[in-house]
Amino acid sequence: MATVGIVMGSDSDMPVMAKAAEMLDRFGIDYEMKIISAHREPDIFFEWAKGAKERGTKVIIAGAGKAAHLPGMCAALFPMPVIGIPMKTSDLGGVDSLYSIVQMPSGIPVATVAINGGQNAGILAAKILATSDAALLEKLEAYSEEMKDQVVEKDNRLQETGYQAY
Amino acid sequence: MATVGIVMGSDSDMPVMAKAAEMLDRFGIDYEMKIISAHREPDIFFEWAKGAKERGTKVIIAGAGKAAHLPGMCAALFPMPVIGIPMKTSDLGGVDSLYSIVQMPSGIPVATVAINGGQNAGILAAKILATSDAALLEKLEAYSEEMKDQVVEKDNRLQETGYQAY
Amino acid sequence: MATVGIVMGSDSDMPVMAKAAEMLDRFGIDYEMKIISAHREPDIFFEWAKGAKERGTKVIIAGAGKAAHLPGMCAALFPMPVIGIPMKTSDLGGVDSLYSIVQMPSGIPVATVAINGGQNAGILAAKILATSDAALLEKLEAYSEEMKDQVVEKDNRLQETGYQAY
Amino acid sequence: MATVGIVMGSDSDMPVMAKAAEMLDRFGIDYEMKIISAHREPDIFFEWAKGAKERGTKVIIAGAGKAAHLPGMCAALFPMPVIGIPMKTSDLGGVDSLYSIVQMPSGIPVATVAINGGQNAGILAAKILATSDAALLEKLEAYSEEMKDQVVEKDNRLQETGYQAY
Amino acid sequence: MATVGIVMGSDSDMPVMAKAAEMLDRFGIDYEMKIISAHREPDIFFEWAKGAKERGTKVIIAGAGKAAHLPGMCAALFPMPVIGIPMKTSDLGGVDSLYSIVQMPSGIPVATVAINGGQNAGILAAKILATSDAALLEKLEAYSEEMKDQVVEKDNRLQETGYQAY
Amino acid sequence: MATVGIVMGSDSDMPVMAKAAEMLDRFGIDYEMKIISAHREPDIFFEWAKGAKERGTKVIIAGAGKAAHLPGMCAALFPMPVIGIPMKTSDLGGVDSLYSIVQMPSGIPVATVAINGGQNAGILAAKILATSDAALLEKLEAYSEEMKDQVVEKDNRLQETGYQAY
Amino acid sequence: MATVGIVMGSDSDMPVMAKAAEMLDRFGIDYEMKIISAHREPDIFFEWAKGAKERGTKVIIAGAGKAAHLPGMCAALFPMPVIGIPMKTSDLGGVDSLYSIVQMPSGIPVATVAINGGQNAGILAAKILATSDAALLEKLEAYSEEMKDQVVEKDNRLQETGYQAY
Amino acid sequence: MATVGIVMGSDSDMPVMAKAAEMLDRFGIDYEMKIISAHREPDIFFEWAKGAKERGTKVIIAGAGKAAHLPGMCAALFPMPVIGIPMKTSDLGGVDSLYSIVQMPSGIPVATVAINGGQNAGILAAKILATSDAALLEKLEAYSEEMKDQVVEKDNRLQETGYQAY
Repeated sequence: MATVGIVMGSDSDMPVMAKAAEMLDRFGIDYEMKIISAHREPDIFFEWAKGAKERGTKVIIAGAGKAAHLPGMCAALFPMPVIGIPMKTSDLGGVDSLYSIVQMPSGIPVATVAINGGQNAGILAAKILATSDAALLEKLEAYSEEMKDQVVEKDNRLQETGYQAY
Repeated sequence: MATVGIVMGSDSDMPVMAKAAEMLDRFGIDYEMKIISAHREPDIFFEWAKGAKERGTKVIIAGAGKAAHLPGMCAALFPMPVIGIPMKTSDLGGVDSLYSIVQMPSGIPVATVAINGGQNAGILAAKILATSDAALLEKLEAYSEEMKDQVVEKDNRLQETGYQAY
Repeated sequence: MATVGIVMGSDSDMPVMAKAAEMLDRFGIDYEMKIISAHREPDIFFEWAKGAKERGTKVIIAGAGKAAHLPGMCAALFPMPVIGIPMKTSDLGGVDSLYSIVQMPSGIPVATVAINGGQNAGILAAKILATSDAALLEKLEAYSEEMKDQVVEKDNRLQETGYQAY
Repeated sequence: MATVGIVMGSDSDMPVMAKAAEMLDRFGIDYEMKIISAHREPDIFFEWAKGAKERGTKVIIAGAGKAAHLPGMCAALFPMPVIGIPMKTSDLGGVDSLYSIVQMPSGIPVATVAINGGQNAGILAAKILATSDAALLEKLEAYSEEMKDQVVEKDNRLQETGYQAY
Repeated sequence: MATVGIVMGSDSDMPVMAKAAEMLDRFGIDYEMKIISAHREPDIFFEWAKGAKERGTKVIIAGAGKAAHLPGMCAALFPMPVIGIPMKTSDLGGVDSLYSIVQMPSGIPVATVAINGGQNAGILAAKILATSDAALLEKLEAYSEEMKDQVVEKDNRLQETGYQAY
Repeated sequence: MATVGIVMGSDSDMPVMAKAAEMLDRFGIDYEMKIISAHREPDIFFEWAKGAKERGTKVIIAGAGKAAHLPGMCAALFPMPVIGIPMKTSDLGGVDSLYSIVQMPSGIPVATVAINGGQNAGILAAKILATSDAALLEKLEAYSEEMKDQVVEKDNRLQETGYQAY
Repeated sequence: MATVGIVMGSDSDMPVMAKAAEMLDRFGIDYEMKIISAHREPDIFFEWAKGAKERGTKVIIAGAGKAAHLPGMCAALFPMPVIGIPMKTSDLGGVDSLYSIVQMPSGIPVATVAINGGQNAGILAAKILATSDAALLEKLEAYSEEMKDQVVEKDNRLQETGYQAY
Repeated sequence: MATVGIVMGSDSDMPVMAKAAEMLDRFGIDYEMKIISAHREPDIFFEWAKGAKERGTKVIIAGAGKAAHLPGMCAALFPMPVIGIPMKTSDLGGVDSLYSIVQMPSGIPVATVAINGGQNAGILAAKILATSDAALLEKLEAYSEEMKDQVVEKDNRLQETGYQAY
């Protein structure tokens, strides 16, 4: 079973998508990770996206760049939340990916995170699942505390050393 | 109790936010709708956002325009999903709102929908809740069928009348 | 039989798509025009796009706005040219539609025309078919002459009346 | 004879244009490749573009950057399809090239592909010719299958190794 | 004889181009105004642009919108200054026209003015001619004084009435 | 004496600049308001900007549109804070004004507020003066309370009437 | 006591923020520098921002990137001027940070400087304090003279060496 | 005497401005090159710009980046043509410089060339002077021929070697 499906159209997106997987690993959420192209293998993609619900999937995380159709097509085929990650692009910086993912028509939302926001996609998936999983919610709150501590620690170091030495 | 919190910083955002509420009404999801400004009344905002979990809220939908901080500040204070709606702006078309909402730093995701995407925010909230609510999931699937039928009907009309008469 | 398939995801795109049909009418090219949404009825869309070749279609003209996936998904399913028309959008002017259509990944081109370029999409379809149809090519050349004459006529009027009276 | 004409205004565009040529080589389509500048040698350009039809050319692929006029001027002089490739630019990322190519006025379409989309321009030319060449269409379909297999293979490798090792 | 040539590709650009003519009228500079499309009648355009020098033209003012090739093609054919006016466009606001005109490659400059800057194009033409015409230079300086007086007068009115009554 | 100088290059900017004046009126800050163009009357502008300090001015508020040089030139000539207001423009929405004002080189800052942000410019001037004026600071804090109350009141109305009636 | 508070959400912003501190050092203005995240530790942030006035702070300089909320939230909590520094971002160049900081709603201004404008933020803080500190004003004027001398010196070198040798 | 004045606000612009000087050297046009900042030394700048006419200057070439005021302020003070060169910027690619230079208000044109278009600025200055200098016009026409020959030569090499070897 795969509570979360992570899908990317090209393995060049792997460094960003891996960040999502790492967060799911951290929170102990089971997932499957797939390279499937909606453009290059639409049949395989359709079958995968339509079968996700039956495989127990509750959330799909889809990353794509340029004319990024993968998240939106997932949202057309899968009835629960789809999280879209716009990939940074070498020419337009990722604004093409962002518009192609976030500007979905009425009826078919994609929950879009920041350009190259793999880590946030993983956290958002966890937050979605935490709406019905108190233990997971606690883990998320612990993670927030940890982030807070990291900032406090950095500030402490700054106060000790001053900015020139930082 | 309010499973979903709908919040906007200004009542000028009401026409868009009302679309979110209409979808929640349709799916039978209870919600509260608030006008609270993170900029103009930060104390009230903090109390509201921090108390949301205790009030039984599972998802917050926050709409904001221009330097749109409301969704991101909700995400800093509420541990479950925050959906952000970037408002169209008269000068920059809403690209300012979009960037201010979607480009969140690592650790604090906002699930961003399209500019003025009130309806999709409501649907996305329902999809999130449907990850643990089979009856709601069925309603969402019925809604998808309905959308499908509407398109089919339009196409039927086109086939009958031709495009000149359409 | 429909040599050209004209498809749009929403009937709000009709005024632009009608311009494409008018050009095909003018050049005597048979076509079918459909309202089919890749997002709202993916199954119907898949069947239609995959069956186009069998129905004798040589070119598809697809118009879409915002996160405009329809042209790209046609190109994933239909082996001959797909012409994409980015719709003007009220918030971003159509730059979202343009990026979502033109920035296709390697292997899956969409022949993109200008924002709201329905007329040009129709002409481009005719030019594609004219690569193997000498009579159609002649019609296209006659059309070019006609456009030329219109500009000449306007200039003649300007020379006669002067710019104040024009 | 040259069924396809590939033209660029500057040899700095060669790496991108070569990708188009490689696709034509692959599909066995004969072509000529030229460096001709519409700005620096308008007479030579005019003669070349106007003579293309007589030389048996069915499709022109034109690449250009910045205020990219070459594709549009080809379309003004050549009656069959012109495919435009916007070059990435060092300052504006290619959005200048893209607008200069895609935003053609009514009557004179340019079939625009992605920024630096040399490969897709070659494929699109093949698709255009395939509207009247069943053997070429088969080659294109075989190429699609090959792309599909490549993605499947990558996914298989991912399933075997996991994302950390990928 | 026409010291300045004013040319536009479409009569929809007339309101902006008329502003250029009005300035030339004011400064007593003789000019011809033409509607000629580089895209729709390239032969007529070529002949006109190449013959301009022989007709005594010293400066060309060319206005164009969207993929605005007219100014750049004038600059390719005419050896003296070409002033380009980017037209405002309904979808992209004129940024497409601006990029298509200003981003010319090395060797072929177009002197670009603001979007819809017809008046400034006329003034710039006068300034160019004033480099060798002392009487015209005086007229330009008188015009500057007049502009100055207009602002002074407005400020005087403001000081008298206050801003509420202004 | 004029503690604040409000300056605009064109009276078309008056509606926005008046908002700044209204805030200064409200906080009881004396000011002068001038229409002076750095472009059309550079001598008058220089004299005014250089003399501001002697006239007792502590802050300048400058509004300008398009290639908005007025705020930056004030900052080059006046040693205390200059607040810049980018005007919305009909073609580019004000992004041209914004970049021309905010992107100042090192050494010459302009305190930039939002596009058409006249009211905020007035408030910012008051905040600057409040760094050494406790009574003014109290007025600003009272104003903040008032804004807070207005939002609370709107929310109360919403809770009473519901969003449909709002 | 800290007359100026310098705050950043992440230590990755240090190189830019250090430029602000260096200018304050130069002008002999006391300050505190903090790493505090409005998103990751909202409680700590609130306490710090609300307590700033009591700690004697007159101006806050806040730097942030992407969906940059820190300056705006400071402005919601601190009654005197807040200067915002938009950080350059790797994908969108900093236009996201700029919009998120400068496009503040009415009532809550942020005095925004250029992207990565750390030095100018420090100077602007000094200019604000100089509205009530004649000695500081003199230092600022001396600094201006120094900048002037540096440019003069560079020009002198150019006049001596010529541009090839420069 | 200096027929052309080349001015830049910062020596970091030298590599681009040197291209303009090289073209003037080539065409035998005398010029002066200056580093003068309108922001850092407004008095020196004013004196220089206002005195240019008396020094025999016919054209000013001004380069500037970011909030690029130098060209526009030259145009406010010098009655003959000012050519503006927008510098590429590290964050926004030069679109800030471009808007700040090209979007001049009515009455004060700046003849804007491409981002980093130093060479074209030099050529444009020569073209302006050639409106009253037949010998210079011949040099410009010879230069055009040379550019033409360079392209022809490149194409010859391509025809000989093929694109793989090119």
